[in-house]
Amino acid sequence: MPFVRIDMMNHMPKSLQKEIADAVHSALVVTVGIPPDDRFQIVTTHTDNLIYDPGYLGIVRTDNIVMIEIHLSVGRTLEVKKALFAGIKDRLVDLDLRGEDVMIHLIETEPVNWSFGNGIAQYAERMPVHLAAQ
Amino acid sequence: MPFVRIDMMNHMPKSLQKEIADAVHSALVVTVGIPPDDRFQIVTTHTDNLIYDPGYLGIVRTDNIVMIEIHLSVGRTLEVKKALFAGIKDRLVDLDLRGEDVMIHLIETEPVNWSFGNGIAQYAERMPVHLAAQ
Amino acid sequence: MPFVRIDMMNHMPKSLQKEIADAVHSALVVTVGIPPDDRFQIVTTHTDNLIYDPGYLGIVRTDNIVMIEIHLSVGRTLEVKKALFAGIKDRLVDLDLRGEDVMIHLIETEPVNWSFGNGIAQYAERMPVHLAAQ
Repeated sequence: MPFVRIDMMNHMPKSLQKEIADAVHSALVVTVGIPPDDRFQIVTTHTDNLIYDPGYLGIVRTDNIVMIEIHLSVGRTLEVKKALFAGIKDRLVDLDLRGEDVMIHLIETEPVNWSFGNGIAQYAERMPVHLAAQ
Repeated sequence: MPFVRIDMMNHMPKSLQKEIADAVHSALVVTVGIPPDDRFQIVTTHTDNLIYDPGYLGIVRTDNIVMIEIHLSVGRTLEVKKALFAGIKDRLVDLDLRGEDVMIHLIETEPVNWSFGNGIAQYAERMPVHLAAQ
Repeated sequence: MPFVRIDMMNHMPKSLQKEIADAVHSALVVTVGIPPDDRFQIVTTHTDNLIYDPGYLGIVRTDNIVMIEIHLSVGRTLEVKKALFAGIKDRLVDLDLRGEDVMIHLIETEPVNWSFGNGIAQYAERMPVHLAAQ
């Protein structure tokens, strides 16, 4: 259910791109509790068309910035979201990236808004009726 | 009003890419009832940076996966959403794609959040006041 | 906090791409009141995979179309949104683009859904508790 878009500069090595994607997914599994096989990600690299402020909120960013956009179902608590942000940052720091270069934002959508194949709204079928019918 | 991002691997022929975009739009027109000329889509192809689980929810996916992200105004019922998912799947199966390779998710936004040109919030102008002002 | 995706055809000169990104950001600062250094944008150019209707709502569009997707925190009024749409359009017209070729839509998300670095939900920390906890 999370659908993740990850954008970064194209000087990042291919192997690191893959490791970053793995790290983001691992954090989602551990902190949000999504199933390990619930994984859908798109990594896109850019030349000079990825624009960021190098100091907003006092955070010093570099061209190693990783922009992570996560679409997921509504309902996660603030604590879970904080754990997700920290979990992604920690894993990217383990890849020798800087914590300051990790930008994340979440877009929440209803469970019934997902179809994982075969034209079926899988989460509507298995949700309580009062939620599925929102 | 729907704004659609379609992502797939770059081995998909150009002609098929266009047919997929046509099919997604056709399903939106028939099932959601949008005007035929309300069409805005971006198709992006990827090399190895499109990541998917080959078996989540028991659905067997291949590199012919098509990831479809649809931004549309809030308010469609679950029945309409189900019809949309099925309608897209049916049309892609007609193009000899596998139903299992059709992944869709919807992001809903307010009608007043759209401007189709000239810097005007067209749907605010023509919506009932109590909806437009929300 | 706004995260902006700007898509256009690849015949647009690099210098114009940058000016368009600058213009969109300027409009956000002036009309929405975001800090000037709160800037995160991705500009992507396309060959034939950017699809638009040339006449929806009676607006004549050309291949110079600019599709602007803005993710921002919830809570802006209709008046602010209208000012934003007009502000972007005016600035792109100043770049000799046509107002008809400016398509914009907004995706709203909660303030707690943003992390600008270091794995922290910065807007949760500085928001009133009743808002941050939602």
